[in-house]
Amino acid sequence: MSYSLPEFLAHAIALEREAAERYLELADMMESYRNDEVSQLFRDMVRYSNMHHDSIVERAKGIALPALRSWQYRWRQPPEVGGEEAFDPGLNAYDALRYARENEIRARDYYVQAGKESSDAEVQRLAAEFAAEEAEHVQALEEWLARTPRPSATWEHDPDRSGAA
Amino acid sequence: MSYSLPEFLAHAIALEREAAERYLELADMMESYRNDEVSQLFRDMVRYSNMHHDSIVERAKGIALPALRSWQYRWRQPPEVGGEEAFDPGLNAYDALRYARENEIRARDYYVQAGKESSDAEVQRLAAEFAAEEAEHVQALEEWLARTPRPSATWEHDPDRSGAA
Repeated sequence: MSYSLPEFLAHAIALEREAAERYLELADMMESYRNDEVSQLFRDMVRYSNMHHDSIVERAKGIALPALRSWQYRWRQPPEVGGEEAFDPGLNAYDALRYARENEIRARDYYVQAGKESSDAEVQRLAAEFAAEEAEHVQALEEWLARTPRPSATWEHDPDRSGAA
Repeated sequence: MSYSLPEFLAHAIALEREAAERYLELADMMESYRNDEVSQLFRDMVRYSNMHHDSIVERAKGIALPALRSWQYRWRQPPEVGGEEAFDPGLNAYDALRYARENEIRARDYYVQAGKESSDAEVQRLAAEFAAEEAEHVQALEEWLARTPRPSATWEHDPDRSGAA
């Protein structure tokens, strides 16, 4: 089976819109914590996502796009909020960055896979380009994570650290 | 800490709107599979959710509501779609019903917990009423699940069945 250009474009548009919405949410949350640095990072991500979204919409002009289901493009929820999300809704900067990173990885993997699953040259070209962009976002978030204090309260539950001496 | 009426109403409105959107998606998907029975069930759920939503909006008239974060009210994604959601986006009727049930359970538990966490009598009253409604939805979905064929392909991965003889 070949993954078509309209399917690809519909996903890319939805992924970028979703990213912009989630980054805006994270930026506002960080601002409310007076974490201006991380808030600014997330606002930059909102801007990139919106710009990318608009350029893909332009590319898709005149192409009938399929309707997607919510779980095909929505971000996964941050694992840290667990079952208590209703009452303790905040994420610290570290967990917010991890949440963003996980979803950027998911977007990157989506584009890599889409390129593989399509025999359409234009899908392959765009998928490679978009995967590279997402990989840059993952890298940027990794760098921020490396210099963001890890909250000690979550240390024990952090899978990155389990088994560490 | 006491959970306030505006917080409670904001959640209830968001939960009902989210449920209506997700049930519409599931109804359309079941219709595309020519499963008219389950599609009709989901359309009924859309209607109930919309009616409930509208009545809570009416109740909240004149009350300033807080902004919520997406993970406080959005449905969790169906576990079955795994990492392949982009390319194999459908859910069979059984998995769609399980997905709906999990999210109704989550809504019910939210209302139960909200009632416990609040010292506001009106929150307690509404929370008990809404929890009972969600419990009815859970029950209805349980009954549909009991008479819906379980797809054999997912049998082995079904946690309800693991360890069964």
